[in-house]
Amino acid sequence: MIIVALDPPFGPNGSYTLVDILEKTRDLAYGYKVGLPLILDSGIDVISKIKKATGSIVIVDLKLADIGDIMVSTAIRLHEKGADGIIAHGFIGVENALDKLVEESTKRGIQVILVASMTHNGSRRYIDQHFDEIVEDALKLGVHGIVVPATRPAFISLAKRKTRGQLKIYSPGIGAQGVEPGTAICHGADFEIIGRAITRAFDPRRSIVEIHDKIAHKVIECSGYRESST
Amino acid sequence: MIIVALDPPFGPNGSYTLVDILEKTRDLAYGYKVGLPLILDSGIDVISKIKKATGSIVIVDLKLADIGDIMVSTAIRLHEKGADGIIAHGFIGVENALDKLVEESTKRGIQVILVASMTHNGSRRYIDQHFDEIVEDALKLGVHGIVVPATRPAFISLAKRKTRGQLKIYSPGIGAQGVEPGTAICHGADFEIIGRAITRAFDPRRSIVEIHDKIAHKVIECSGYRESST
Repeated sequence: MIIVALDPPFGPNGSYTLVDILEKTRDLAYGYKVGLPLILDSGIDVISKIKKATGSIVIVDLKLADIGDIMVSTAIRLHEKGADGIIAHGFIGVENALDKLVEESTKRGIQVILVASMTHNGSRRYIDQHFDEIVEDALKLGVHGIVVPATRPAFISLAKRKTRGQLKIYSPGIGAQGVEPGTAICHGADFEIIGRAITRAFDPRRSIVEIHDKIAHKVIECSGYRESST
Repeated sequence: MIIVALDPPFGPNGSYTLVDILEKTRDLAYGYKVGLPLILDSGIDVISKIKKATGSIVIVDLKLADIGDIMVSTAIRLHEKGADGIIAHGFIGVENALDKLVEESTKRGIQVILVASMTHNGSRRYIDQHFDEIVEDALKLGVHGIVVPATRPAFISLAKRKTRGQLKIYSPGIGAQGVEPGTAICHGADFEIIGRAITRAFDPRRSIVEIHDKIAHKVIECSGYRESST
């Protein structure tokens, strides 16, 4: 399933609006992910705007990495505008940080997703050294999900084994960052987060349709099924 | 020197406005630090509003911890609104993250400050294990400064020795988080970041005046001077 990451600009050279992208993708996107650049451009009300235009879930990805009080204060504001999920860094640690965030989010019905590794090379330097521990923290905290990049398929498989379906796995890094659609799902991810390959495409509609097809084929392939007609 | 952290609500029970706090503190604050809650409440234009009202520097503390492209995209937007400095996490790593942010920020004259440790207990779990390496990354990247909490005075002394004045040291954790004003400066910090002890005080003006005095006394004490009149 596809989560579309909405980072401006939209279309080649910013030739589309946010609404264009939402209209062209809403029946094929499971949900949308909103980051800092869009929030800074359009304000926090963009969350409810996306929900209204699409009827889909909205995950707000500010990669929260602050003390508990500030993260709670942020989460409350995002939830008031309709955010279904929020992404925070596992690296920040539990005590007086993630513990407070998860407690308050659980009360309010906000789903917390923890970053356990990232797509860029710099992630190997510090974050990835603690990948196992962060996944264990996520399990203990009982969060909704974790982010594990498609650029580290072995990490996805490992996370899948460790979490046994208790946590949803969200996987960025498909498309513009070089990984084939379907790769993350084949390794155990629940969602592939895809941004630029759709939102900056000349034809975003065609792009999401093609990516959908590629995921379907890849999943058929990796699950060992072979259809006689193909 | 004092940087006032502007996290809402202001005054006891939110009885002051942001403008109240700025008016009561502007001649005694070296600068202001703005975090996510205020940006979400007031939008990005709050940065230029604070600068106009005070004439002081504004550091935007979104604790950036994303891939390079997203951090650059964010930094450009903040700079356009007048941000003098931005805070990012050292733990995110250099390659394809901090390298890009620092390159683009240097071009535009934005000062980058890296978090090397944090005030909460959870910081000990992962971040603090890499404190030395993050300070070294900061030196190699040639950033403007680092954040080292007043709750870890030994880390401040260590950072001061390692950086030899090449990096400014910003220290949160004074006041509401339990550390005496002046403690961080006595250990080698350049700035003490103080929030709630001023912004939620019944009398913010009196509070910042008292904190100023306490810092002055502490610094006289720790630097070994004794005035005959005291």
